[in-house]
Amino acid sequence: MPKTAGIILVGNEILSGKIADANAAYLCRELRALGVDVRRISVIPDDIQLIAQEVAAFSRAHDVVFTSGGVGPTHDDVTIEGVAVGMGTKVVRHPMLVEILERHFRDRLKESHLKMAEIPEGAQLVGGETIRFPTVLMGNVYVLPGVPEIFRQKFEAIRERFRDQPIHLKNVFVAIGEGVLADYLNRLLADYPLLLLGSYPEFSNPEYKVKVTLESRDRGYLEGALSEFLRSLPGDALVKVT
Amino acid sequence: MPKTAGIILVGNEILSGKIADANAAYLCRELRALGVDVRRISVIPDDIQLIAQEVAAFSRAHDVVFTSGGVGPTHDDVTIEGVAVGMGTKVVRHPMLVEILERHFRDRLKESHLKMAEIPEGAQLVGGETIRFPTVLMGNVYVLPGVPEIFRQKFEAIRERFRDQPIHLKNVFVAIGEGVLADYLNRLLADYPLLLLGSYPEFSNPEYKVKVTLESRDRGYLEGALSEFLRSLPGDALVKVT
Repeated sequence: MPKTAGIILVGNEILSGKIADANAAYLCRELRALGVDVRRISVIPDDIQLIAQEVAAFSRAHDVVFTSGGVGPTHDDVTIEGVAVGMGTKVVRHPMLVEILERHFRDRLKESHLKMAEIPEGAQLVGGETIRFPTVLMGNVYVLPGVPEIFRQKFEAIRERFRDQPIHLKNVFVAIGEGVLADYLNRLLADYPLLLLGSYPEFSNPEYKVKVTLESRDRGYLEGALSEFLRSLPGDALVKVT
Repeated sequence: MPKTAGIILVGNEILSGKIADANAAYLCRELRALGVDVRRISVIPDDIQLIAQEVAAFSRAHDVVFTSGGVGPTHDDVTIEGVAVGMGTKVVRHPMLVEILERHFRDRLKESHLKMAEIPEGAQLVGGETIRFPTVLMGNVYVLPGVPEIFRQKFEAIRERFRDQPIHLKNVFVAIGEGVLADYLNRLLADYPLLLLGSYPEFSNPEYKVKVTLESRDRGYLEGALSEFLRSLPGDALVKVT
């Protein structure tokens, strides 16, 4: 069975429109390329109980869960505590993280920095072989930071854990609108019911009207569906296949 | 009581990383400027049952709900049906929408286009005074399209419905890191417990280290908190206030 994933973005700053999240789109692209199926994304406030509920529900519903945000040293950084509550445990300080922080901050180390050495009791530290600060993994929940550069560094360090059977994709760009296209898509799905088929209109592009995406984990099935779809299209409808 | 909002993005294309959503960030900014509190965003697949469950839960939990995506003429456009199921009703064809489609497509009108004339039974059409195609409102759920240009046009046509008591914001940029800053923020919150206080580090900006946001619907409360915060900061910490 291919892996499923859920993503929880923790952050008042996203909900209040101060910051446009970039981590979910990045992670969806990366996980898709690895063959992992992202099933759901939630954006919730910096609130321990809400984080706990969401983490508990996501952890049950998906093979892996990623959180983004809320892991710094200030009052609004409550993700670790939320994950701990959600996974039925408590927060403890990890000696190795304390040591990393001591090495990093030296005589500038403050008590508040040590909040970043906290983990849910029972959590593992992963990915620390290649980067300075490892990632907290509690059950199937990976706790990642909100700052995009660091989010990416930390994901890069653990990405090979998630590699699965790839999902093959073909894009077909057509010069006919969705209203006309709909019948062709429905006929294709009747013959290829397991095909993942998407239809995305583009109103301001002079080159094509709709991008159609065909996807499958089975390359032969995909090639069969693609051939049938291309054969079925009216002569002047096809713009390109990528 | 100020209004609360929830946003549901419907779209396999977002979850599979093909398209980075722009509508949620836009809507969060707009609603915040209007004084509306966005409490939660969900991204879910093009699946009638999942949409129905999410719409039902969001409708109960928020004053207003917005959906984005899944409203075209093709097989993967199932939001109207999902909203209908979620709100306990069925899908019907609206004569005024049929008429708009007939005027628009004339002799190019296909049966599949008429899917765009469907609404949940009992829904209203709103915002049609200023744009060609009105927005479907079912209970407290506004159904908006996924294409960003049209999403914005349609929201612009209904935005004044949501205006509420404004949320005032001050940004304070400081040259000290979050570890040091944390104590100042905690002291400020002790004196101003109702303050909405955010702390956003910026690791690659030479000008400042952290942006601190202070917010309140009460302008006097915000001004009081801002004065106390600025007074409390060490002499060389403040970069600017905006």
